[in-house]
Amino acid sequence: MAKPENHKQAPRDPNARGSGSPAASAPAVKTAITPTRAEDYAEWYQQVVRAADLAETSPVRGCMVIKPWGYAIWENIQRALDRMFKDTGHKNAYFPLFIPKSFLEKEAQHVEGFAKECAVVTHHRLIAGPGGGLIPDPNAKLEEPLIVRPTSETIIGAAFASWVQSYRDLPLLINQWANVVRWEMRTRLFLRTSEFLWQEGHTAHATADEARAETAQMLRVYATFAEQFMAMPVLSGPKTAGERFPGAVDTYAIEAMMQDRKALQAGTSHFLGQNFSRASGIKFQTKEETEEHAWTTSWGVSTRLIGGLVMTHSDDDGLILPPRLAPAHIVILPVFRGDDTKAKVMEYIDSLARELRAQRYEGLPVEVEVDARDIRGGDKQWEWVKKGAPIRLEIGPRDVDGSVVMVARRDRSPKDKASMPRAEFVATVPAILAEMQAGMLAKARKYRDDNTRVVASKEELFAFFAPSAKGGEDGNDISGGFALAHWAGDPAAEAEVKEKLKVTIRCIPQAGFESAPWAASVTEPGPCLFTGEPAPQRVVFAKSY
Amino acid sequence: MAKPENHKQAPRDPNARGSGSPAASAPAVKTAITPTRAEDYAEWYQQVVRAADLAETSPVRGCMVIKPWGYAIWENIQRALDRMFKDTGHKNAYFPLFIPKSFLEKEAQHVEGFAKECAVVTHHRLIAGPGGGLIPDPNAKLEEPLIVRPTSETIIGAAFASWVQSYRDLPLLINQWANVVRWEMRTRLFLRTSEFLWQEGHTAHATADEARAETAQMLRVYATFAEQFMAMPVLSGPKTAGERFPGAVDTYAIEAMMQDRKALQAGTSHFLGQNFSRASGIKFQTKEETEEHAWTTSWGVSTRLIGGLVMTHSDDDGLILPPRLAPAHIVILPVFRGDDTKAKVMEYIDSLARELRAQRYEGLPVEVEVDARDIRGGDKQWEWVKKGAPIRLEIGPRDVDGSVVMVARRDRSPKDKASMPRAEFVATVPAILAEMQAGMLAKARKYRDDNTRVVASKEELFAFFAPSAKGGEDGNDISGGFALAHWAGDPAAEAEVKEKLKVTIRCIPQAGFESAPWAASVTEPGPCLFTGEPAPQRVVFAKSY
Repeated sequence: MAKPENHKQAPRDPNARGSGSPAASAPAVKTAITPTRAEDYAEWYQQVVRAADLAETSPVRGCMVIKPWGYAIWENIQRALDRMFKDTGHKNAYFPLFIPKSFLEKEAQHVEGFAKECAVVTHHRLIAGPGGGLIPDPNAKLEEPLIVRPTSETIIGAAFASWVQSYRDLPLLINQWANVVRWEMRTRLFLRTSEFLWQEGHTAHATADEARAETAQMLRVYATFAEQFMAMPVLSGPKTAGERFPGAVDTYAIEAMMQDRKALQAGTSHFLGQNFSRASGIKFQTKEETEEHAWTTSWGVSTRLIGGLVMTHSDDDGLILPPRLAPAHIVILPVFRGDDTKAKVMEYIDSLARELRAQRYEGLPVEVEVDARDIRGGDKQWEWVKKGAPIRLEIGPRDVDGSVVMVARRDRSPKDKASMPRAEFVATVPAILAEMQAGMLAKARKYRDDNTRVVASKEELFAFFAPSAKGGEDGNDISGGFALAHWAGDPAAEAEVKEKLKVTIRCIPQAGFESAPWAASVTEPGPCLFTGEPAPQRVVFAKSY
Repeated sequence: MAKPENHKQAPRDPNARGSGSPAASAPAVKTAITPTRAEDYAEWYQQVVRAADLAETSPVRGCMVIKPWGYAIWENIQRALDRMFKDTGHKNAYFPLFIPKSFLEKEAQHVEGFAKECAVVTHHRLIAGPGGGLIPDPNAKLEEPLIVRPTSETIIGAAFASWVQSYRDLPLLINQWANVVRWEMRTRLFLRTSEFLWQEGHTAHATADEARAETAQMLRVYATFAEQFMAMPVLSGPKTAGERFPGAVDTYAIEAMMQDRKALQAGTSHFLGQNFSRASGIKFQTKEETEEHAWTTSWGVSTRLIGGLVMTHSDDDGLILPPRLAPAHIVILPVFRGDDTKAKVMEYIDSLARELRAQRYEGLPVEVEVDARDIRGGDKQWEWVKKGAPIRLEIGPRDVDGSVVMVARRDRSPKDKASMPRAEFVATVPAILAEMQAGMLAKARKYRDDNTRVVASKEELFAFFAPSAKGGEDGNDISGGFALAHWAGDPAAEAEVKEKLKVTIRCIPQAGFESAPWAASVTEPGPCLFTGEPAPQRVVFAKSY
């Protein structure tokens, strides 16, 4: 069907300016986001977050304000994960925000890792100071400072110690949704902030095998969530000893590739052995009436996932949201001239929105937002492009007359709009959303697979990650990607690449690469690049966030 | 239908002991909770919370651990309220946990009210101390202390100041689900804790009328929630000037009567005028291109609601949950002797649970928990009585043979069990739950109405609240109830009853009393009990939490 006259091509975003950067490798097309990914990836990220109105910095150093569109994405993440946690037998609970200093001191490695950069509460009262303002009351100094939780193993461990008496109390499967604070000097919205929101699972088991099975199960849950909801392919597997969670026996992670080809650790699952149960005194009577320490795990994902979502899918026009996490699947934009056509258009839109909301996508109602604000149509369109709404519908008087809808998909060019019979669109919208979701995963997977190389020698590894004269490998801090290489466990080699290349071993992949062209290379044994010793499989080297 | 043999009357809870207290006014029946309400109300409350496994104290002074059954109630509260907030146009967002000290200093009255007992963060690092432990690093002292939010008007105000530019940006309707900290010396689980969970709504409007309408709307939302979900009747109306939120122009509250006849303030909605917008600089350009300060509101409810739920409905056998907030509507308890009947019983239960879960109550699936733990049947029954599950089903081999279920309702005596045809129970379960919910509200309303008196003189007011020789009015700190009296606004009179009787004016009721026998007395004008000046209506005096 021909494009009706009333759908003028929206002008490019007026905020956008042509790329004038001499460093830019891309041609100077106008984009809604400047700079582009190619021009300045880090700044592009900040601009996408800002343009999509996801979050902003706050007057409190390192703490962000998560704005409604960003928070709605987090709510969708929470809903999906919470369902998966409950389906695997976990229950939610809530533990104190504060951790007594002495608790952090209990587990030696944990102290090393977490007792450093943290918010320390030392007083419980303010009083009027000599200058008229408020000062911490010297008479209200805490006997023992309290730490704002950077993670809750120690305080939850104390609770578990009293909850667990007998093997009958095990397994204990708990999750907490909470805010945590790790003081950061250099912060980036969602990716690294002093305060962030997360969930932390904490479980206790009667045997090491059960705890290991739990660790593996939750890693699978995260990988499934990342792929099926975020459309973000992930490699999953254990971390090297050097990259373990402080106090863990084994740490497993899911690792995704961002569009600057760096890795983002998107979730971790830890087998804690008996370290924390010894530190916290989580003991139980076995069936055989002996006393044993429980085996514990912990696992978490955070608002960092939103950063991963942004960097996996967005383009130079802004955010692109996978339908399963989009706060609105469809945004309807009325197009009318004057009040005489307004009533007709709005009536059509009301009934259309009702029909769409009665459709279900992935077991939930299709979410529709009608944007009837009285602002310029072009601005409005571009706002929703930048916010990443999967489908935009423009509806004008001629669409009403023809009983059609003008459909624009965020996974296609903003110029690409097509008219569709209304009834057909309503009937096929779940299929369109499913196609978009699948397409986004496929695209992200191809990007990752295309930017992963099997590396056969130390020289090749160094060349792959060699910084260019301009900063990053390609002059814009865009990394080479993932390098698959044999490594036989030598910490000195690991330290060397970290120091010289700022590259780390992201994980020893066990899953997530099955469909990749280089899948067979992962599991292939071979001599270590550094020591020549036999390695059972290849590991993933990458720069990371 | 006769009671089948295999449903032995469960013995009374083995933890229960007879009342030996000489102060007890009730006869010494065995109850699952000791002491009883009549014996020691405050201790009864703690024991109900403990026996229902809702929460416990933590090693951190004043902070509680919310256990899974308690947290699941909170999740149900959140789900219901969140829906109501979104249906009234609000969006969720998230703001920093920390508030710079200078922000708290901005609004004069707010400083007075909130800058006192709070958690003050002064350092951002711990280092190894001389004694081997950790100490706050003297080199990591914050230039400006940070306060853990006791409420977020000031930090949200700072964000609003940048979000609001024009009348087109208004109204701005935001809600936050968060933890807050107000340092408390004397704490009680849920009712008064240093850290608690809550929601805080914050809105900005172009006119005072709109902001007042929002304040009133959210008060109605709270009253509706309290009555329809919590089955807790509430009076609602403005607070007196002396009881206002620090910095508010007007504070409105919902007030419920607990079973010790004291009032619980269960939610507040504040009209903040332009006080906070002046302090934070929330200005906007009007349609007429003048610049004005916005009019703001804030409103909140917290985990205190769970305390209200406990004290409104529980009895001497423990918690009683209104079906609309119960984490499980039905608990199925298998009863079998030996493994030969187990398979048959469990198969019956599995299919029964499936059928029940396919039923819907108030738009959501009926929640069923099957408790197949291998513990004594009597213990198990009493555990669910104490946890307040609305319906318990005991299923033994004879029930399977007869295709019946043995039904026990928590709103009836634990001894009162009745057999019902399975199909009939499945079909009527939504109606049974609705009847229980309505019955709980009616019962609570009757209790409140019966314990509310119209008081005609100052002497009568003093007599109503007179402490007995034994402590409270009836020797157990059980209050007289609500006293309706004329009061014409004299703060001295208000201060006098507060000082002498520990009684406050809970609110000037505008709604929530329509069905009460004394409804007409509320709106009746008359002379003030203290000054003789004309008062337009009666107000509610009560002791409170």
